[in-house]
Amino acid sequence: MSYALMSQLFVRTLREDPADAEVPSHRLLVRAGYIRRAAPGIYSWLPLGLKVLAKVDRIVREEVEAIGAQEVHFPALLPKEPYEQTNRWTEYGPNLFRLKDRKGVDMLLGPTHEEMFTLIVKDLYSSYKDLPVILYQVQTKYRDEARPRAGILRGREFTMKDSYSFDIDEAGLQVAYDKHRECYQRIMERLGLEYVIVKATSGAMGGSRSEEFLALADNGEDTFVRSPGGYAANVEAASVAPGEPQDYSTVPSPTTIDTPGASTIDLLVTAVNEAAPRKDREWNGGDTLKNVVFMRVTPEGKRSPLIIGLPGDREVDEKRLEAAISPDEVEPFNDDDFEAHPMLVKGYIGPGVLTENLALLGTKGSSQITYLTDPRVVEGTSWITGANTADTHVINLVMGRDFTSDGIIDVAEIREGDPAPDGSGPLELARGVEMGHIFQLGKKYAEALGLQVLDANGKLVTVTMGSYGFGVTRAVAMVAESSCDDKGLAWPRNLAPFDVVIIVAGKDEQAHEVASKLAEDLDSAEVEVVLDDRNVSPGVKFADSELIGFPTCVVVGRGLKDGVVEVRDRAQDTARNVPVDEALAEILSEVRS
Amino acid sequence: MSYALMSQLFVRTLREDPADAEVPSHRLLVRAGYIRRAAPGIYSWLPLGLKVLAKVDRIVREEVEAIGAQEVHFPALLPKEPYEQTNRWTEYGPNLFRLKDRKGVDMLLGPTHEEMFTLIVKDLYSSYKDLPVILYQVQTKYRDEARPRAGILRGREFTMKDSYSFDIDEAGLQVAYDKHRECYQRIMERLGLEYVIVKATSGAMGGSRSEEFLALADNGEDTFVRSPGGYAANVEAASVAPGEPQDYSTVPSPTTIDTPGASTIDLLVTAVNEAAPRKDREWNGGDTLKNVVFMRVTPEGKRSPLIIGLPGDREVDEKRLEAAISPDEVEPFNDDDFEAHPMLVKGYIGPGVLTENLALLGTKGSSQITYLTDPRVVEGTSWITGANTADTHVINLVMGRDFTSDGIIDVAEIREGDPAPDGSGPLELARGVEMGHIFQLGKKYAEALGLQVLDANGKLVTVTMGSYGFGVTRAVAMVAESSCDDKGLAWPRNLAPFDVVIIVAGKDEQAHEVASKLAEDLDSAEVEVVLDDRNVSPGVKFADSELIGFPTCVVVGRGLKDGVVEVRDRAQDTARNVPVDEALAEILSEVRS
Repeated sequence: MSYALMSQLFVRTLREDPADAEVPSHRLLVRAGYIRRAAPGIYSWLPLGLKVLAKVDRIVREEVEAIGAQEVHFPALLPKEPYEQTNRWTEYGPNLFRLKDRKGVDMLLGPTHEEMFTLIVKDLYSSYKDLPVILYQVQTKYRDEARPRAGILRGREFTMKDSYSFDIDEAGLQVAYDKHRECYQRIMERLGLEYVIVKATSGAMGGSRSEEFLALADNGEDTFVRSPGGYAANVEAASVAPGEPQDYSTVPSPTTIDTPGASTIDLLVTAVNEAAPRKDREWNGGDTLKNVVFMRVTPEGKRSPLIIGLPGDREVDEKRLEAAISPDEVEPFNDDDFEAHPMLVKGYIGPGVLTENLALLGTKGSSQITYLTDPRVVEGTSWITGANTADTHVINLVMGRDFTSDGIIDVAEIREGDPAPDGSGPLELARGVEMGHIFQLGKKYAEALGLQVLDANGKLVTVTMGSYGFGVTRAVAMVAESSCDDKGLAWPRNLAPFDVVIIVAGKDEQAHEVASKLAEDLDSAEVEVVLDDRNVSPGVKFADSELIGFPTCVVVGRGLKDGVVEVRDRAQDTARNVPVDEALAEILSEVRS
Repeated sequence: MSYALMSQLFVRTLREDPADAEVPSHRLLVRAGYIRRAAPGIYSWLPLGLKVLAKVDRIVREEVEAIGAQEVHFPALLPKEPYEQTNRWTEYGPNLFRLKDRKGVDMLLGPTHEEMFTLIVKDLYSSYKDLPVILYQVQTKYRDEARPRAGILRGREFTMKDSYSFDIDEAGLQVAYDKHRECYQRIMERLGLEYVIVKATSGAMGGSRSEEFLALADNGEDTFVRSPGGYAANVEAASVAPGEPQDYSTVPSPTTIDTPGASTIDLLVTAVNEAAPRKDREWNGGDTLKNVVFMRVTPEGKRSPLIIGLPGDREVDEKRLEAAISPDEVEPFNDDDFEAHPMLVKGYIGPGVLTENLALLGTKGSSQITYLTDPRVVEGTSWITGANTADTHVINLVMGRDFTSDGIIDVAEIREGDPAPDGSGPLELARGVEMGHIFQLGKKYAEALGLQVLDANGKLVTVTMGSYGFGVTRAVAMVAESSCDDKGLAWPRNLAPFDVVIIVAGKDEQAHEVASKLAEDLDSAEVEVVLDDRNVSPGVKFADSELIGFPTCVVVGRGLKDGVVEVRDRAQDTARNVPVDEALAEILSEVRS
């Protein structure tokens, strides 16, 4: 006998949801006995969970090896030096688990392994003839997330497939990148996940171009935009359609107006409509230029004010902002900060070159404070904005005529219906979970760590790299999340811990015999089957079967007197009677369809 | 084509030995491109290494699952609390990698997982009906070794299979223990390792009985003893044959004698033979009782002197001592320590009840210093020993009559030829490497963590546990170590990264065609084959083939004009010509034999 017995399996289902579970996959994977929490964001895997994990792992490996990737395996406990050379020791900030060994030597738990892969290729290879090469590992990664959540969806210890490509030039990188893109598409399809590929930012990774594979999920923590015409981007990477310079020849010169107490956009609009009404229409929030102050903090801890000017009817999206200035972060600009910078008048900040007093922001100013503006603030646009004096604003301040900025920053919130930057239509906002991320790193790591090879002319050239991550443990959660219902998990057949559960309903000897025989026959036919032989009520067995999510459930019980067993399909939520002597053939055809 | 090409494989062989390599397996695994050092005691695995590792892993899993163990997987990054409850957070001392997360919470990298397994069974199980159960994982472990050495033989990050048994009583534990013992025997046989099973100490693990599986190796760091009659023990666990109490009725009363300057055993023997010659024979070192002082240090840092009395012709074996007092450790008793304990007269320490002055050691004394004696110091034996005054010794001091001790400690060095404690003959000393360790833990962890189940009478009983470790990465090194020769590695066929290498010797088209065809045919027959198609000399290919250690090497080259290829056997160091059209059948029969 080699089929599994439910009475022996190390699994117990729970009636109660775990207190900390926010999302269905977390709740159900714990309740159904797949995983257990060991510490915040750190999970233990029980036999059922490991079986699913192994199947996801196999799919990922098969597809990665199919594009020619060779497997290696790096330590999780790593020396500091390579990560210092690329500055990621610092840039990763508190997300990095750092420790000292018994000799006081600094070490880290690897969040991702660009440095190590770069060094191993440097160690082994020296000629363009050695390239291209793609290496991969499936390995435990560590990130000290500020808010680990949703069980294994965002953990602090997790399993990732990470691969890395090494090429002599950009064209080679593009080939490796495209291979991975297609490889990830196949993986997502085999996992049965609905997904979208979106333009992404590179974050701490660096590099030029990157895309994320997002599994669609209403409760996903990643927001993305897409247009009917095919534009798709992570909200951090989404951009605004570039505006055309405008003719400002008819715009009057700027004028300051008194706006007592108008420290919000709404109050300001009201005040200006009274003080300086325009003829064609009323002023609105979009006519105002809001200047928002943040304290920017570098990984080394250097702090400086950053002011962002954007239309008054938009807010700064902090996720977009942090992505744009990564690895720097921002903190609120607090009252002490305002006190330390008396030229910044809270509620009335504005760029300005009208008088020396107003010459605060922008390259023409002398404040030494960085001032960046939204792409909508194009040359020739005219604005109502702060006059850097309490209770005073200025109108008709024209970008490029009356003020300028230190650069463009595209970090305003994206709204449903905003135009796609490529003209492909209005944007739709949706949510997903990042399953994979592919990066064109370029030469960043190779340069920092000195990875060069001789080219065909005997000249040293720096290698061009790509890196490609896929969340293996996360995929288990995401498949659970996308296939479950209110009764429990409902695995697709290719990922289920067992294909078939046979429930012995009733205590008579015959039921047990028929069930055991069927289990044996299915096992011989290489179907993964578990026999629920436990001494509990049929009701408990049904409920567990639905909670655990076996695709096919065969009930051997009362029907036997009529010569039938019941075959239930978990995903379809259907049940039908099948004559005992046809059950094997019937189940086999279902399992193999 | 799915066979491997040497030109594509991510491997480079080195001509030079790595500077830090002490043992052949380390030297060769690095030179042949199986592993690379990432930090002291921490290694990266290259494709060839991973292939061998996967085969070892499979053998271990197959055998562990054959005894009914179910796979689970715990995190490597663990919370402190469970390890505090068992006191191992402290007891592990500097061998434990400790770290704090971003919130300042103490965490550790798991050196072994008794606590976590105990808690998961407590979480899931509650009745004697649930038992027995055996759980296992194959997982990355961390130990901050003081002296990581010999490459992956003793690393700081390594892969271990650890399993744990849970039983309602001792009889159940014995069954699980015996299952593991047999399982490990099968694993060692399948790995082709010569081994011995020895009695062992339990160290930081705790528990009653344990045995080690040592692979025989002249350069192994573990010393063990064995007798012709079958006694075998790790040197730390070896014991001395218990002596019989002796009749001391004819021994005169103790006498002090002047022994100026006799601060060593040799000087003492000379002095006593002059001052108080005996009639039957000369005094010798074995007649003296040497009292050696150590500073004992608890994991919490508490320090106290520990004096060990043993025959003067023996030394204390510090490894045996540390094993005996684990988790405490010892440090040398230095001059400052002697100054702080003026009653301990360096070179003249002795037990004594002759006068108040001498009442220093043993339970009858008043020194409050722990005094433990060697098992050879049995009741009735008479000794020459220090009189606790400079330049003075005492003779005829009889154990049990004139002094006693606080207990027995069996930590004197074991010598070749010492009698086995079970009377099975003289001991032989030999060396090996610990591959597996099986422990009867008993109730230590279950008690500390409250793992109880209801017995058949509805009464709560504490569960009885065993734990069983096997070094998976270490096994790769040990197999390499035991099969290599001066030319390189020479893998047994069932563990080799590839079964067959086909060397294209020469540049003519025909050689390449014949070789490719043979590779294709072997691949179709499911033989793991690599074609050495590199543009290097045959000499380089031969040397690499021998260094990497492929079991079978087929040379397709000059012989072709006579219609033959050469088939070399790496382990046998033989070569023979085989007609081209018989090569496939010939190789298949060799590979499958």
